Amino acid sequence: MSQSSPITSTANSINERAAALVERMKAEALELRIGIARGELGETLIDAGAEHVGGIAAGLRMAEVCMGGLGVVSLIPNATVPRWPWSVAVRSSDPVIACLASQYAGWRLSDGEGRDAFMALGSGPARALARGEPLFENPAFAHLAYADSTTSATLVLESARPPPTALVAKVAQECGVSPEHLTILYAPTQSLAGSVQIAARVLEVALHKAHELKFPLERILDGMGTAPLPPPHPDFVAAMGRTNDAIIYAGQVHLFVSGPVEDARALADQLPSERSRDYGRPFAEVFRHFKGDFYAIDPMLFSPAQVTITALETGETVHRGQINPSLLDASFA
Amino acid sequence: MSQSSPITSTANSINERAAALVERMKAEALELRIGIARGELGETLIDAGAEHVGGIAAGLRMAEVCMGGLGVVSLIPNATVPRWPWSVAVRSSDPVIACLASQYAGWRLSDGEGRDAFMALGSGPARALARGEPLFENPAFAHLAYADSTTSATLVLESARPPPTALVAKVAQECGVSPEHLTILYAPTQSLAGSVQIAARVLEVALHKAHELKFPLERILDGMGTAPLPPPHPDFVAAMGRTNDAIIYAGQVHLFVSGPVEDARALADQLPSERSRDYGRPFAEVFRHFKGDFYAIDPMLFSPAQVTITALETGETVHRGQINPSLLDASFA
Amino acid sequence: MSQSSPITSTANSINERAAALVERMKAEALELRIGIARGELGETLIDAGAEHVGGIAAGLRMAEVCMGGLGVVSLIPNATVPRWPWSVAVRSSDPVIACLASQYAGWRLSDGEGRDAFMALGSGPARALARGEPLFENPAFAHLAYADSTTSATLVLESARPPPTALVAKVAQECGVSPEHLTILYAPTQSLAGSVQIAARVLEVALHKAHELKFPLERILDGMGTAPLPPPHPDFVAAMGRTNDAIIYAGQVHLFVSGPVEDARALADQLPSERSRDYGRPFAEVFRHFKGDFYAIDPMLFSPAQVTITALETGETVHRGQINPSLLDASFA
Repeated sequence: MSQSSPITSTANSINERAAALVERMKAEALELRIGIARGELGETLIDAGAEHVGGIAAGLRMAEVCMGGLGVVSLIPNATVPRWPWSVAVRSSDPVIACLASQYAGWRLSDGEGRDAFMALGSGPARALARGEPLFENPAFAHLAYADSTTSATLVLESARPPPTALVAKVAQECGVSPEHLTILYAPTQSLAGSVQIAARVLEVALHKAHELKFPLERILDGMGTAPLPPPHPDFVAAMGRTNDAIIYAGQVHLFVSGPVEDARALADQLPSERSRDYGRPFAEVFRHFKGDFYAIDPMLFSPAQVTITALETGETVHRGQINPSLLDASFA
Repeated sequence: MSQSSPITSTANSINERAAALVERMKAEALELRIGIARGELGETLIDAGAEHVGGIAAGLRMAEVCMGGLGVVSLIPNATVPRWPWSVAVRSSDPVIACLASQYAGWRLSDGEGRDAFMALGSGPARALARGEPLFENPAFAHLAYADSTTSATLVLESARPPPTALVAKVAQECGVSPEHLTILYAPTQSLAGSVQIAARVLEVALHKAHELKFPLERILDGMGTAPLPPPHPDFVAAMGRTNDAIIYAGQVHLFVSGPVEDARALADQLPSERSRDYGRPFAEVFRHFKGDFYAIDPMLFSPAQVTITALETGETVHRGQINPSLLDASFA
Repeated sequence: MSQSSPITSTANSINERAAALVERMKAEALELRIGIARGELGETLIDAGAEHVGGIAAGLRMAEVCMGGLGVVSLIPNATVPRWPWSVAVRSSDPVIACLASQYAGWRLSDGEGRDAFMALGSGPARALARGEPLFENPAFAHLAYADSTTSATLVLESARPPPTALVAKVAQECGVSPEHLTILYAPTQSLAGSVQIAARVLEVALHKAHELKFPLERILDGMGTAPLPPPHPDFVAAMGRTNDAIIYAGQVHLFVSGPVEDARALADQLPSERSRDYGRPFAEVFRHFKGDFYAIDPMLFSPAQVTITALETGETVHRGQINPSLLDASFA
């Protein structure tokens, strides 16, 4: 196109995009039944399902914040599993940034000890400012030359309470923003909002397993996923089990990748959850079997049930894995 | 959260939310093929399917107005009933307010007698200003402390013509607004917009039956529903029959409730339409059987075919009722 | 309604609506991974899948531009064809204008000869300004009194490169706008965006066949359609084959029409692709069979697999045709 001159595009800071979504949530706090508060350091705290009721709508918004505004998350009727006819569907215009630089719950945050200890996994676009996780060393991020630049940060926590002040200060510092420009959304695993935002990770889970399998992430050009909405459970382990099972036993993902078809096929062969040693019983049982030691569980289990990969280089599509309605029932019932 | 101070949220007046949606409809009147007019008292009249063609898009907008802007209504492909693959799907961030304080067609409006008599059931957020119906005595509304406060009112009518002036004056007065700040949307049952906005009542119908069954409404925290799009029929009784049958024989609803699981189970046991004495033939036949006396029909018939209720207190989910494709076919064919 | 006075509505210029969508695409160019450039004559060139990656999100936006902002296009999970569980769904508030005056790829554009020749079919709202095609002589357009009036024009091309300058000048002139007010979006058939925007033509294809069958277009009052997302193929003929097969072997359309039910039935009898002489093998094979002579292919083949038509005059619904999963597999695999 020698005859044309490119027009510089505006920046796509995922934290700025998330901030715009957060503003809309604040304006509709009553409708969403979420709580908005200021913490001790001036940080904004959004309670989407702890002391406040929250709900599905709050969870959908939370999930889109989590993806840095680069994903579309919706709740739709889906006849794939007739007994559980509502699914969370997610797609992204930029899945590697949306899911791995933002949505993946990779930032381990802890403070204090014993009974007062606070422990949570942070997700959301704030991670792309802090960049403290090994994941960011993946060549994809260098390749994509992605670095977020903004004056505000948004963090999402699967938690029943806001983080202690010391942790807020640490997060703000690592993000390079003042605490007044930090927003923290939180909802426990057991809440409706939590259930929605975790099921919305079905695409992210596939991308993260691709990363674990060392598939070059920059070759994942597009993708979408769906998982049945897990009914919340008041017990943490049961609730966590259901959100995982929604993905492991009934999640569906389609990825579009560049590069050799052999690589796409190799990825598809490994990607479905059924390839894992620990596949075959509800996640809560697996978790109890390993006495709650998360890191003893086969990481290959965290993956959608059914995977479709299209190799754009040849136009070939590989289908692997399958929906397991009876295990889903065993988990949700 | 002793360390945090709550931020007061903006009001969520359902009439104000509806007014914003109405403004958008007015701006897109040509595209939506709806008519906008001013009545004798200065009221705004929106014809979505009487003299104007209207259509599905107009009906979707009308349904969202009807829910006071607290619901999302969409038309989507749905393989549940293969012969009727398009469904109206509805969800709400606040189902009790959206469906019962706003969407329920509970305001009986009549004027004149004999041939010139006007009779219609009013729905939409104006009802929450007038609060003249017994439904508003339900403790849920006291419990929710819900009272709408605004200077504009929006009413929706299932009608082939706008209400007579005397009725407009009465509605405005009971809502406490001047007629110039009253908007009335109307479309006959036989129109496409009418068909869409009635099918979009699938969730409201479940909530209203829960109210009839004396289930504490404030315990219904979230919900969604879907029903096949009923093809319009030029005959009023046939058209009304189809819109009811879409819900009664193929509607699906999922509710999330607080409180004891026994109560949730008892609600689920009673909720599906199949529990009604009058279940088992197309609604138009039932209506004719009772010689058009609506109040002779078992009120328990007005309910979705299939109901899923999750008791958040225990995480248990109860499934009751089922889709009846052959009765749907008998009605739609 | 003698008592009411109509309020004049704002114009619904499809080029103005498209221009607003284009502005949003430009603002999100980085997220959509599309290229924005200025051509030699000052025209805006949007590359949604040629030199730039683009993707599904870019294709959905492109499809809505193509419909002049009068259609809603989404990607959703759909269990109709379990092996290909993602569909493009499209509906329009004004299908004749959206699909035929705008989306139909009816403007043949060519320039130069031999190796440097440029050939593409133009679609999008610019067509309604140029009005050079015989299609615009259809009485529906006179009947609808539709003429777009605006100072900007938007054209969409299924092409791997932008048009040569001479063609840009010609398009601008025929649209009656200066080249600086002309926007051209392009993406090759082989790209993800191309795949999405072509599958989004499922409703348009039904309307165009109705036009070919001389059904009075002004009687088509509403409609919606869905087709599985075709996986892109690097070969032009294979890619074109798949996009056509998505519609021919798995597309579903529902139309709502006025006029005699006999006419609706006659239309439904002819409309499904299975009525065509060339039905029964993947489109790429048909194309090769006719040695790439597009005009030797039976025009009746270009139609959805399954058609539902509701005659509003009687309320009768006619179902014709069927989904053909094995031929879809033969094409996509």
